Amino acid sequence: MSTTGVIRCKAAVAWEPGKPLTIEDVEVAPPKVHEVRIKEYLTGQFRQFPLVLGHEAAGIVESVTKCSQGDKVIPLFLPQCGECERCLSPKTNRCRKNWANTQASVMADGTSRISYKGQQVYQFLGVGSFSQYTVVPDTSLAKIRSDAPLDKVCLLGCGVSTGYGAVVKAAKVEERSSCAVFGLGADGLAAIMGCQAAKASRIIGVDVNPERFEKARLFGATECVNPNDHAKTIQEVLLDITSGGVDYALECVGSPVVMNSAFESTRDAWGTCVIVGWSESEAINIKVEKILMGRTLKGTYFGVEE
Amino acid sequence: MSTTGVIRCKAAVAWEPGKPLTIEDVEVAPPKVHEVRIKEYLTGQFRQFPLVLGHEAAGIVESVTKCSQGDKVIPLFLPQCGECERCLSPKTNRCRKNWANTQASVMADGTSRISYKGQQVYQFLGVGSFSQYTVVPDTSLAKIRSDAPLDKVCLLGCGVSTGYGAVVKAAKVEERSSCAVFGLGADGLAAIMGCQAAKASRIIGVDVNPERFEKARLFGATECVNPNDHAKTIQEVLLDITSGGVDYALECVGSPVVMNSAFESTRDAWGTCVIVGWSESEAINIKVEKILMGRTLKGTYFGVEE
Repeated sequence: MSTTGVIRCKAAVAWEPGKPLTIEDVEVAPPKVHEVRIKEYLTGQFRQFPLVLGHEAAGIVESVTKCSQGDKVIPLFLPQCGECERCLSPKTNRCRKNWANTQASVMADGTSRISYKGQQVYQFLGVGSFSQYTVVPDTSLAKIRSDAPLDKVCLLGCGVSTGYGAVVKAAKVEERSSCAVFGLGADGLAAIMGCQAAKASRIIGVDVNPERFEKARLFGATECVNPNDHAKTIQEVLLDITSGGVDYALECVGSPVVMNSAFESTRDAWGTCVIVGWSESEAINIKVEKILMGRTLKGTYFGVEE
Repeated sequence: MSTTGVIRCKAAVAWEPGKPLTIEDVEVAPPKVHEVRIKEYLTGQFRQFPLVLGHEAAGIVESVTKCSQGDKVIPLFLPQCGECERCLSPKTNRCRKNWANTQASVMADGTSRISYKGQQVYQFLGVGSFSQYTVVPDTSLAKIRSDAPLDKVCLLGCGVSTGYGAVVKAAKVEERSSCAVFGLGADGLAAIMGCQAAKASRIIGVDVNPERFEKARLFGATECVNPNDHAKTIQEVLLDITSGGVDYALECVGSPVVMNSAFESTRDAWGTCVIVGWSESEAINIKVEKILMGRTLKGTYFGVEE
């Protein structure tokens, strides 16, 4: 297959908000300068339409300007240009490069490399991995080991990095600390892994679905709590069982109500709550007194240090 | 004057919420074990009644169990016992000792040392410095130099320590960073001093009263902004003049609305807002997106590390 011409392949296209995806034969253009075309394997959300979904992926470099053909890579919705004020700052690595374009689901030149019958199809978060082939900026790729199983490492493209990074990079959980992880999906399980790696002494998994508890324990949770099993609020339950609150709470749900519960479940004087779950255009209602008593509320994007 | 008997002296007593203070002849009992009686000089709020106000003071040790008579001291509404989990933690020094009693405006045994015609008069925050004499726990005193001017150093008993500490202990402002200080009262001016000591490159004073700007500049503000001079919100103004927001914002007002403005005036990816101003039982409405974009919101009590 040519590495310079247009590739025809299958992609899952979102045409309108709320409508089912359809699998279409799309055209994937060759990469322009500083872009890389990759053969995708897996994985998905929504904004510009029509849109090829998928941002959590792993694939093989198909044609390039910079890295090598055949390299296994994970496409990233957050690049690492190494040159902007953020890449150069010791405080964060949330690169500014292509930020607006990535949010607009296009490449640096404002266009997409995927089309359907001549119509431009957007690439979700600048990735668009629900296609057999896609093109991404060359600063948005992490090269991985050649023996890495693509069907598993794709999760490093979002959930695992976000949850794990929230613990070790944003919260900076220390040895012997107590942690509560709200929400035991991919982000939450990765956060639990992070807490275990940080040698937290108590890792409390919180979810309204008790079927998730077994896996949470497998990943390192020392105990699990179902808010529905208690008459008290979940923050009251956690304050009780930890004699005053956890050192760190990780919100991996994306619900303002749960965010507030997570925040209020932290210990006063030094408790830290990190918001991991994504939520758009909503507000959290934080009691001033809880802040004044020394708690910290912070967020992270893709698990980076911030 | 006897150091063991009851002392009769003048004190400003609050009898009911909202009513004017009256100056009364009160009785100050001798200190019990682990308490110190001090001769007060200066300085005020409200909860239990009748109440001797004042918590921001400096005085001379009158009679003691532990430190020396004649020592100059600053009474503290937050003690330092050196034994509790917080005093022993590297993360904070917000001592737990006598916390509930201090909030209830009494000594460790649940009673006050000040009385008026036989009726107990509460001591605000366990201090009650609006009296010529008061008694405080011996863990709630900072001994100061014998040549310290009591009419000035009394401010270290609250405002100066709170504002300065918020910058150097809670926010941990670094060299060359940009800071905005909201509210140019005692806390705010002390925060500006802290920013200057931390060698911040921009220290922006914010107040609706422009008469405070001259003093703010004297304390180290590099520029001052009056929100009323602009059609845009103050956070929009600050984002404009700092090309994206300040590294640190200090809220020294105690208004949930200003707290939100201060938070939103910080730079995404690493901006930190520290709440210094006191406000009871109100909530801040924080946009989730602003947190997720890497900002940090935290509070401090008396400027301690938290």
